[in-house]
Amino acid sequence: MLDLVLKGDAVLPDGLHKDCWIGVSGGKIAAIGEGEAPDAKEVRSVENGLILPGIVDGQTHACSYGGLPGIESTTRSAIAGGVTTLVDMPYDNPDPLNTKARLDEKVQAIESVSHADMALYATVAPGQDNSEIEALIGGGVVAFKISTFESNPTRFPRISSAQILQIFEALAPTDIPLGVHNEDQEIVEFFMQKAKAAGQNGLVAHSQSRPPAAEMAATAQFLELGAAANAHAHIVHLTTGRGFQLVDQYAATGFRSTGELCVHYLWFDPEKDGERLGAKMKVNPPIRPNEIETLWDEILSGRVAFISSDHSSWPIDNKLTPSIFDAGAGIPGLETLLPSFYTAAEQRGLDAASITAEMLCERPAKFFGLWPQKGAIQLGADADFAILSLEPHVWDAAKAHDDLNWSPFDGVEFSAKVTATYLGGELVWDGEQVIAKPGAGKYLKRLDTNWFDA
Amino acid sequence: MLDLVLKGDAVLPDGLHKDCWIGVSGGKIAAIGEGEAPDAKEVRSVENGLILPGIVDGQTHACSYGGLPGIESTTRSAIAGGVTTLVDMPYDNPDPLNTKARLDEKVQAIESVSHADMALYATVAPGQDNSEIEALIGGGVVAFKISTFESNPTRFPRISSAQILQIFEALAPTDIPLGVHNEDQEIVEFFMQKAKAAGQNGLVAHSQSRPPAAEMAATAQFLELGAAANAHAHIVHLTTGRGFQLVDQYAATGFRSTGELCVHYLWFDPEKDGERLGAKMKVNPPIRPNEIETLWDEILSGRVAFISSDHSSWPIDNKLTPSIFDAGAGIPGLETLLPSFYTAAEQRGLDAASITAEMLCERPAKFFGLWPQKGAIQLGADADFAILSLEPHVWDAAKAHDDLNWSPFDGVEFSAKVTATYLGGELVWDGEQVIAKPGAGKYLKRLDTNWFDA
Amino acid sequence: MLDLVLKGDAVLPDGLHKDCWIGVSGGKIAAIGEGEAPDAKEVRSVENGLILPGIVDGQTHACSYGGLPGIESTTRSAIAGGVTTLVDMPYDNPDPLNTKARLDEKVQAIESVSHADMALYATVAPGQDNSEIEALIGGGVVAFKISTFESNPTRFPRISSAQILQIFEALAPTDIPLGVHNEDQEIVEFFMQKAKAAGQNGLVAHSQSRPPAAEMAATAQFLELGAAANAHAHIVHLTTGRGFQLVDQYAATGFRSTGELCVHYLWFDPEKDGERLGAKMKVNPPIRPNEIETLWDEILSGRVAFISSDHSSWPIDNKLTPSIFDAGAGIPGLETLLPSFYTAAEQRGLDAASITAEMLCERPAKFFGLWPQKGAIQLGADADFAILSLEPHVWDAAKAHDDLNWSPFDGVEFSAKVTATYLGGELVWDGEQVIAKPGAGKYLKRLDTNWFDA
Amino acid sequence: MLDLVLKGDAVLPDGLHKDCWIGVSGGKIAAIGEGEAPDAKEVRSVENGLILPGIVDGQTHACSYGGLPGIESTTRSAIAGGVTTLVDMPYDNPDPLNTKARLDEKVQAIESVSHADMALYATVAPGQDNSEIEALIGGGVVAFKISTFESNPTRFPRISSAQILQIFEALAPTDIPLGVHNEDQEIVEFFMQKAKAAGQNGLVAHSQSRPPAAEMAATAQFLELGAAANAHAHIVHLTTGRGFQLVDQYAATGFRSTGELCVHYLWFDPEKDGERLGAKMKVNPPIRPNEIETLWDEILSGRVAFISSDHSSWPIDNKLTPSIFDAGAGIPGLETLLPSFYTAAEQRGLDAASITAEMLCERPAKFFGLWPQKGAIQLGADADFAILSLEPHVWDAAKAHDDLNWSPFDGVEFSAKVTATYLGGELVWDGEQVIAKPGAGKYLKRLDTNWFDA
Repeated sequence: MLDLVLKGDAVLPDGLHKDCWIGVSGGKIAAIGEGEAPDAKEVRSVENGLILPGIVDGQTHACSYGGLPGIESTTRSAIAGGVTTLVDMPYDNPDPLNTKARLDEKVQAIESVSHADMALYATVAPGQDNSEIEALIGGGVVAFKISTFESNPTRFPRISSAQILQIFEALAPTDIPLGVHNEDQEIVEFFMQKAKAAGQNGLVAHSQSRPPAAEMAATAQFLELGAAANAHAHIVHLTTGRGFQLVDQYAATGFRSTGELCVHYLWFDPEKDGERLGAKMKVNPPIRPNEIETLWDEILSGRVAFISSDHSSWPIDNKLTPSIFDAGAGIPGLETLLPSFYTAAEQRGLDAASITAEMLCERPAKFFGLWPQKGAIQLGADADFAILSLEPHVWDAAKAHDDLNWSPFDGVEFSAKVTATYLGGELVWDGEQVIAKPGAGKYLKRLDTNWFDA
Repeated sequence: MLDLVLKGDAVLPDGLHKDCWIGVSGGKIAAIGEGEAPDAKEVRSVENGLILPGIVDGQTHACSYGGLPGIESTTRSAIAGGVTTLVDMPYDNPDPLNTKARLDEKVQAIESVSHADMALYATVAPGQDNSEIEALIGGGVVAFKISTFESNPTRFPRISSAQILQIFEALAPTDIPLGVHNEDQEIVEFFMQKAKAAGQNGLVAHSQSRPPAAEMAATAQFLELGAAANAHAHIVHLTTGRGFQLVDQYAATGFRSTGELCVHYLWFDPEKDGERLGAKMKVNPPIRPNEIETLWDEILSGRVAFISSDHSSWPIDNKLTPSIFDAGAGIPGLETLLPSFYTAAEQRGLDAASITAEMLCERPAKFFGLWPQKGAIQLGADADFAILSLEPHVWDAAKAHDDLNWSPFDGVEFSAKVTATYLGGELVWDGEQVIAKPGAGKYLKRLDTNWFDA
Repeated sequence: MLDLVLKGDAVLPDGLHKDCWIGVSGGKIAAIGEGEAPDAKEVRSVENGLILPGIVDGQTHACSYGGLPGIESTTRSAIAGGVTTLVDMPYDNPDPLNTKARLDEKVQAIESVSHADMALYATVAPGQDNSEIEALIGGGVVAFKISTFESNPTRFPRISSAQILQIFEALAPTDIPLGVHNEDQEIVEFFMQKAKAAGQNGLVAHSQSRPPAAEMAATAQFLELGAAANAHAHIVHLTTGRGFQLVDQYAATGFRSTGELCVHYLWFDPEKDGERLGAKMKVNPPIRPNEIETLWDEILSGRVAFISSDHSSWPIDNKLTPSIFDAGAGIPGLETLLPSFYTAAEQRGLDAASITAEMLCERPAKFFGLWPQKGAIQLGADADFAILSLEPHVWDAAKAHDDLNWSPFDGVEFSAKVTATYLGGELVWDGEQVIAKPGAGKYLKRLDTNWFDA
Repeated sequence: MLDLVLKGDAVLPDGLHKDCWIGVSGGKIAAIGEGEAPDAKEVRSVENGLILPGIVDGQTHACSYGGLPGIESTTRSAIAGGVTTLVDMPYDNPDPLNTKARLDEKVQAIESVSHADMALYATVAPGQDNSEIEALIGGGVVAFKISTFESNPTRFPRISSAQILQIFEALAPTDIPLGVHNEDQEIVEFFMQKAKAAGQNGLVAHSQSRPPAAEMAATAQFLELGAAANAHAHIVHLTTGRGFQLVDQYAATGFRSTGELCVHYLWFDPEKDGERLGAKMKVNPPIRPNEIETLWDEILSGRVAFISSDHSSWPIDNKLTPSIFDAGAGIPGLETLLPSFYTAAEQRGLDAASITAEMLCERPAKFFGLWPQKGAIQLGADADFAILSLEPHVWDAAKAHDDLNWSPFDGVEFSAKVTATYLGGELVWDGEQVIAKPGAGKYLKRLDTNWFDA
């Protein structure tokens, strides 16, 4: 007998299916059907809603502030947002994930406290040689990441172009991408000092201190280093159409090049929202003015690899600093990722259900080698689901589950609400509270599948 | 209780799944699962084989020779070849399908004698106005076709460029493609007379009498007429890489342009096989020398819309004429379509199961607006399956089910064999005999889905 | 001592030079200088004007109406328009230039009656084999031309696609282009009958009877035939941006493909001028509405090979027919070519002197293998000059020198006027009358220079 | 009466003209003619040779070693090599040209000691603001240059990406290019330390210590910064086909991007010549193995802006260091530029006379805004000529005029020899000795002409 049957309208790989059922056994999707459902220990019917695959967020920072224990609250929030898989960045507090030993620690932490499944990025520290890379890959990391900008000398350091080339050469024979936080150190420092010297303070000053040129200088150099080594170069956030255009030129020339977009670049505009939100919308690279529709064009033309949250776990005190330059960059986003993207797609008259499943589930799962285990409601996949009720509701950050309880989306009306989440066939969020126990989530290793062959 | 459960290794949309089951109810795929299967009136296990979606052959000529009664033997052969859906060409003997009245007759014939499901092309006769087009579309035809070369003044006539433009203008507001038999009348006549005058006779003479220039002249003109009307222009058989390159240039410019390939262009080469096969490999446009690997490159680069058989029901007497020029063009191909393509893909080290399902099922179904009813093993689709046993076997044309009993593939060893076919959940071919009764097949109308949005 | 020195502002290959002199000896440009000029038998100073290279008109029909004697009046008009070189089309009355014998006759006529230098196109008649081609090339013809539309069964016949291919194959090893009058016979006939049947009559009816699709169907087929034979395919008049776009795609793919524009497509618009001018602006292919600025974009992007007049010598009676369909197609244009193009360029704020020398002199001379003998004021070139006075004047067709004395440009104000023409160093037009004697012009053979290497 | 008449075979803008004459008056080309030449104070006939425009070397380092006095010997050598115009780099010893005051000093030095005409690059020092840029442009500099690699902290420093962006923004509204020495500091340092640590020493070690990735990382970043500012970004030496491909992609996207090639990249190959020449062929970026024919393809496809010498005035002691890493980078090249490029072109069967005039005269003159004063034998241009005798001769570095007397070309046989040079109509090199007095050359300001409009 099946453990669970979900009934209702589901987003399957070929689109929305009305009135179907999904059978779960042993945590996996064991059957998908129409009509009479088989017996199950538990049956749930979804009314006026959608059964989506569990969301795969390709970019989170669970441990930037609170270290490995931060996994608990971050994944709790994820689960409440329908996100069942997180691909976590390596910039953990106090030390980044750059050795097999640290990978083991983080895996242990995941298994102890995570509410969701997690895959991991690793990094290489400045001056560290490549000797840990093989062990990290063997340990299942799905990608590597470095930054061309130093946010923190230990946790989030700048990696030199020489070392980037070295890392690319090590990864070139594999399918593992090297991602980059793409801002040029010198350009940012120059403009930041200029802004500070001018006594400027505020979101506009932040934005101007990190111009598109800073982003593109780092992006161009990184893509070319990837090309030189014939490795997969991935830009973890591009904020302009020009960025995706450049990535596409490299791809068209035959190089493995990809670019990712975060959902806040599709929602906020400094000219409209900057005064109201201030540091609450401070992210790096900054959100650009008047770029949203250009970025949607990039999505629809197929040039955006996938969409992520870039969730960061900064407490609000870290934002409400006297100077914008002292405020942390990054925003909480796991709980708003699905409703905000779905709403934005619907507002543009798109098939929101399908494009959400594509950009938030299928593509990130394929990108990180988690497909076909994750990313779609299909036979044999993990029984992860996000249940979306199609009812408008206003996002109240005070009720968030991330222990942060602030958000630039606070007070925004979304057209849909996450009313349940299933992880491995278990109900982990019932629309009111997170039911999963810490440690319910598991660590995910990269599978032997390849984005460029898919 | 389900009507049928099939167990075994199945090619689902995301690839091969080992050990799964497919449940059928009311002729539809009602459930797909792993593990314990639900109860069913009938259960069949497939060993050492593959459960594929029923093949959708996008190009057949069931009635060219025997008229509407030809549907019976053609679809009998189809079923024995795992082909559950045929898209039949309009060039019926004695009169082509160019009116709603004739559509009604053909639909009636299908319902009376067809062993397989059939969708239909229509055509427009020389000088006929567009007045029947709307009724034909309303009657469910999936595409229109014309020829730029006259094979027969009534049945397979040449349509003038003026009339092509007129037809394109009528179809432009719709998703319906206009296909073309792409050979230039004047060039073919010129070179044919030259060859005959020189007393040449044989496959090489045939090939030279219809040079690539004849094909490309017609192709280029047709694509441009489609572009002028902003309609969907489809080339039903391109024989060279240049052909697909030109189609791709139109597509890249933003026009709706597609090109199709037939499986014999991937198998035979006049230089190697011409002397042995003679008129048995005479098709139009001719198979070109040394082009096979170029055509595979086109497939792998995504520029081939789909693969078809172009099955023609000529008795062998029609081939064994004193002069190659008197021999009928076209070959039987329904029963060899699946094994030959699968074998050719496997020989090139490709994932033969997946590429077969893509090129012979999913893509033609999407192309002709039969998706998601046809083309994949997915929930709600028709329960059509081809069971392929992975055992080498030599094709013996004498045992074919098309009442023709000759084939250029006679004596060829394939790496797989069609050992069962299911249509709408019914076993219609058991590997030994065709079980379906004439009339088991049904007429398929075009659905409201669109190749270019897919 | 030099025969002649011209002083003033001259358009040299690198642009306008103020206050220079050009020395002529033996009919050639023997020296170009600044400052003190050498002694000469004759010295002329040009004030408030420009010394341009003699215009090279790449497309004239001197003999369509009056046969070979038509050369006299046509070239008389040319000279009065600053046109010192004509490339004449082969569609002579009563018989086209398709044999070496006819070439000899036409050369003899040129030498007897021409006022200007002339290069010649040849053609091949329907059904004629390629046996004359070599002799015609040996005789110096600069290009071949055929039509895909029959204007006249003998003089201006349609050539089949088979024969086009044959001609291309003969020309492929050479630098000789094959030009085409690019209209599809069937499409034009169809729409013309439709218009006639509807009782339509007038310029709009003419325009609609030859839609862009007729032009593009012929163009696409011709380009592809040229590509198949790897020969130089030239479209003698494209009327839309789409036409030049298609030619450019073939060129970008590596084929020898070019497209030409005639000056009337840059000046008239049927929507603005059609009612006023009627058959006086009837040309084939027709002038399209609202296309002028698109065509200028094509010129400035380098995609137009050169600009010509397509001068036709129809008496006005041939135009003032009851039905537009009976009126001759084509307009006189030699005398207005230079002032109209110069004026149109100046109106758009372009460097009119340079672009005129480029599009009306240098490029056609290079195209037809007449460079460096023709097309620029440079050492060793023929001493052909057009003197343009920069004074507005209204064109009075009654004063034209073509014995036709009508023009669609009648009453138009140009910003410049041809006040003198020199041919081989001789003053042949003094602004008032044509001084050259018939026979002053000479026949020009193609030189061994190549457009695609230039 | 003219001052001078040169007679012989001359390379005019449209190619080689046999038996013509060039008249000079007041240092300018006053007339060009054929046949009888006008009277002149002096007449010289060139037999078995070519009259070329004086060579314009777009990249020299006259003052890197000897400071401003180095101009004397450098230009003496230039004159002996047919180079009449030098575009000198700003990296002067001890201080680079980064202020109007230093420009004035260098102009004064030119006027005092230069044998040839000189145009000048300027630079901006690290941390220097843009305040001198306007005065430098006003003072006539033709371009700016920076380096992404520090060869010397004062003279040849690394400029940060932030400052590069600042400089681009200042230059964006002008036609002035910003050139770059394109090597990434970090990559070079890393590999150099690695090579040194491994005890490597020799040309191969040098080459490996500055891999193509170092060059391309700097190139990509620089091109993107130019794109961000919409300014003209120029790469002063690209050593691989990939480099020119990347520049071309930026140009095709609509950005002002160009790349230059130096003649030694077309002549030497480390695999063939490295052992023999050692540090004598050390240049930065290094010459790559097996790249010569790829670079010729780039030239012939039009993707190389022009060819230069990158002449550096290092005494041989600076080369014969114990370690290759201590040897100066750069080689003397002014005296061998013309004969080596002409010989290499001739060896490949090209029209060596025309391509030499194009790549060494016309294109650099247009690039640096010196056209039409420099770069061609045309009316009104400066009367600068290089007379090339078409006689094989072996280059003997001991006889060079640069006071350096070493060269990687020592002992090489060229197919032509510079037997005379004229500057402003004066004979300055007679094939035996440099006749010009120091100070005969003049400073050249940028004219108001634009590479991208040309």
